[in-house]
Amino acid sequence: MSKKLTKRSEDYSKWYNELVIKADLAENSGVRGMMVIKPYGYAIWEKMQAELDRMFKETGHENAYFPLLIPKSYFSKEASHVDGFAKECAVVTHYRLKTSEDGKEIVVDETAKLEEELIVRPTSETIIWDSYRKWIQSYRDLPLLINQWSNVVRWEMRTRLFLRTAEFLWQEGHTAHVTKEEALEEALKMQGVYADFAENFMAMPVIKGEKTESERFAGALSTYTIEALMQDGKALQAGTSHFLGQNFAKAFDVKFTTKEGKQEYVWATSWGVSTRLMGALVMTHSDDNGLVLPPNLAPIQLVIVPIYRSDEQLDAINNRVNEMITEFKDKGISVKYDNRTTYKPGWKFAEYELKGVPLRIAIGPRDLENGTVELARRDTLTKEIVKQDNIADTINDLLLEIQDNLFKKALNFREESITKVNDFDEFKEVLNSKGGFVLAHWDGTSETEDQIKNLTKATIRCIPLDSDKEEGICVFSGKKSKQRVLFAKAY
Amino acid sequence: MSKKLTKRSEDYSKWYNELVIKADLAENSGVRGMMVIKPYGYAIWEKMQAELDRMFKETGHENAYFPLLIPKSYFSKEASHVDGFAKECAVVTHYRLKTSEDGKEIVVDETAKLEEELIVRPTSETIIWDSYRKWIQSYRDLPLLINQWSNVVRWEMRTRLFLRTAEFLWQEGHTAHVTKEEALEEALKMQGVYADFAENFMAMPVIKGEKTESERFAGALSTYTIEALMQDGKALQAGTSHFLGQNFAKAFDVKFTTKEGKQEYVWATSWGVSTRLMGALVMTHSDDNGLVLPPNLAPIQLVIVPIYRSDEQLDAINNRVNEMITEFKDKGISVKYDNRTTYKPGWKFAEYELKGVPLRIAIGPRDLENGTVELARRDTLTKEIVKQDNIADTINDLLLEIQDNLFKKALNFREESITKVNDFDEFKEVLNSKGGFVLAHWDGTSETEDQIKNLTKATIRCIPLDSDKEEGICVFSGKKSKQRVLFAKAY
Repeated sequence: MSKKLTKRSEDYSKWYNELVIKADLAENSGVRGMMVIKPYGYAIWEKMQAELDRMFKETGHENAYFPLLIPKSYFSKEASHVDGFAKECAVVTHYRLKTSEDGKEIVVDETAKLEEELIVRPTSETIIWDSYRKWIQSYRDLPLLINQWSNVVRWEMRTRLFLRTAEFLWQEGHTAHVTKEEALEEALKMQGVYADFAENFMAMPVIKGEKTESERFAGALSTYTIEALMQDGKALQAGTSHFLGQNFAKAFDVKFTTKEGKQEYVWATSWGVSTRLMGALVMTHSDDNGLVLPPNLAPIQLVIVPIYRSDEQLDAINNRVNEMITEFKDKGISVKYDNRTTYKPGWKFAEYELKGVPLRIAIGPRDLENGTVELARRDTLTKEIVKQDNIADTINDLLLEIQDNLFKKALNFREESITKVNDFDEFKEVLNSKGGFVLAHWDGTSETEDQIKNLTKATIRCIPLDSDKEEGICVFSGKKSKQRVLFAKAY
Repeated sequence: MSKKLTKRSEDYSKWYNELVIKADLAENSGVRGMMVIKPYGYAIWEKMQAELDRMFKETGHENAYFPLLIPKSYFSKEASHVDGFAKECAVVTHYRLKTSEDGKEIVVDETAKLEEELIVRPTSETIIWDSYRKWIQSYRDLPLLINQWSNVVRWEMRTRLFLRTAEFLWQEGHTAHVTKEEALEEALKMQGVYADFAENFMAMPVIKGEKTESERFAGALSTYTIEALMQDGKALQAGTSHFLGQNFAKAFDVKFTTKEGKQEYVWATSWGVSTRLMGALVMTHSDDNGLVLPPNLAPIQLVIVPIYRSDEQLDAINNRVNEMITEFKDKGISVKYDNRTTYKPGWKFAEYELKGVPLRIAIGPRDLENGTVELARRDTLTKEIVKQDNIADTINDLLLEIQDNLFKKALNFREESITKVNDFDEFKEVLNSKGGFVLAHWDGTSETEDQIKNLTKATIRCIPLDSDKEEGICVFSGKKSKQRVLFAKAY
């Protein structure tokens, strides 16, 4: 397979699809819309998981596990939830197969029909709140701060690797609280955790905001989001955190006894991020040569390739490199030495460039003589000759610099891609020519939001939390507006 | 809820069921046969996962993820596999629900019927080998050493928490090799990894052996097992590793080009352990007072409970304990300080005893004066007064001693529970009175194996790998036998 990628400027969408496959992150499976996450892709996801899990535990959450299959009737219990979730989903109707009468194939055993159909979870609020009724009796059982790492299925019609797949991996937090204030605080805290993770680990700047009513999670009173900007000027919702009020507590009858002995419904949140973040990571940093990975999430931070003509030369290089590897490992640097004789250096250079390894060392006989190595940076594609002395410190500093550089580069792009507009012609003009985020006044109605969406394909990504509450005139209806909101075309 | 457990001697099975629920490990859900793994149970499973994952990676394996749903036709491709696995399983037939015509409930949308049914994976050989065909072309792509952490569904009719559930969590390794020898070596290596984990982390002695033909995995040429013994004298299969020959390679047409340019089918293994290990852990060590956890897998290794009458006393204890906690954390000891004022010390003692925390420190005003603490061991239920000086070292040493003690105790019990028998009356007598493993000669036929099973409910747990190849006479048929095999009633 050719390593050559379509250029981003030619066809961004094709570039993405090719890159995910050529960099060995994921591929389509024999099941419509379901992907296989390959080892290299999964290794990045594992790094994301480990860091998020650490952050969740640091903020007091514990993991648990709830059933994959949910009785159909559970979905009907929370009125607005059912509309949002119980539609496009995988339905289990039977529990047995049998050999056909001609003995040639296996068929569904019609006598093994379930009394009530089971739904492969599209999200777990219902099955979890059914448990919480048993777990929560008293204020002493609260807050209940639970997270689940799991797979979910949503029968998407148009799928793309990582961005929209019929099955995806994710975490879903589900918490219960004594007061409304505490639940709201939790929802905002987890939005903050997601923003922290996105910016400091993925090197991906995000805007924190609240979703409009029409973009809210089905069953939530408010949905908080982090919105990122991809290189093609389209926005990507990278994580959401929901304040659920008492909706699920009422639907599943989850009450607690207060300190004063009263019975009250608990207050709830839920929040999640998924393997969609893998797509966001790829589209934020990568270039026409392949992946560019931030050091904090790179499975291999440094690759070393020997350059040699003879076995003696390779032996000498191996000896020197093995010493260096000890130094790297002592500093916690994730290093791979690729001295396979079955591939040429040029092939290896292209391979690790495609896979986004942040730093590459090439070392040959001349380097051994001079006490140097050739060091190449993936983010800037620059090379330099550096001393072998203190090489681990050099690498460590550079990894920090690359992490920082990737964030700054993405932040600059994002800042340049936010345009304030004041009338609808300008709105359309900016969306079509420049793309990115458009900051515009909106009258607060779903009607206006829908009409703008129909005319431009742009949606309100969020009502930014940190912006000035500048009043104005709606860009579409001319009615009064309390503050500017963030529009964009989105993934 | 009363913390009082049924005694093991009264009803071992009831004791187990009560303990799993009262110690907050797991509970039944609203879905038949599917469990909820509660935070305390999941924390133990996470420790198991972390350790196994480390061992898999150390032996060269990488993680990946394959689809949850498998097309029905995949199961028919490997003839013996289909009989074993495609029968009792969850079948997805539709992909959409809709609101009923009266608007009162949601129903399956009959227009959204799948052309081919999808099976919720009971194990992933078929979907994985369908991918391997694309991944493997040359000897340079081998060995392929992949592991998956996932959930699987098998429609078990009689379920018990952890031991047999309709959904369970597990890891499944799937590897591909150039030669038969290398695949066999891999299957045995992973059996060894499982035995190492069971003995050194779970403190659970196991016997390594090979399964007889009738107990083999569906599609395997040989199945290697680790067999543990529970306190009631019943055996438990704790992990299996399969040599699959070229069966799946042929079924899914997975060939590679050898160094010499020939096309050959690859050789395969698969191996797995599951949340069943949680049941084994409980039944190996726990007692009539509750869980007993080996320190290597205990989420909390040490709990500290303050004993006080006044707020001043509590403040003074808090200050001293916080200093100690720093010492414990420096030594990597997982410590919890439970100074909640909403519960009494006696309640806390019972709670942590039930939950199997290996060590408990109680500390009161007299201890502060004397520079001592009261230290209680969960495994021996003994208490002693120890000095606060070097307390972290004391605890560290004791944790090692407890880990060792639990293994030795279980090993002694296991050794005492292996009985050599030479005729069938003795065989039945030992099974009924003493239980445990029975080492007896067997003629090697499935007929004899079946008849013994029908008459006694005992199965051949394994043909031990490390035993002498002593010849003899089959305990049932009187025919020639090449070696003794291990019989037991089993979970």
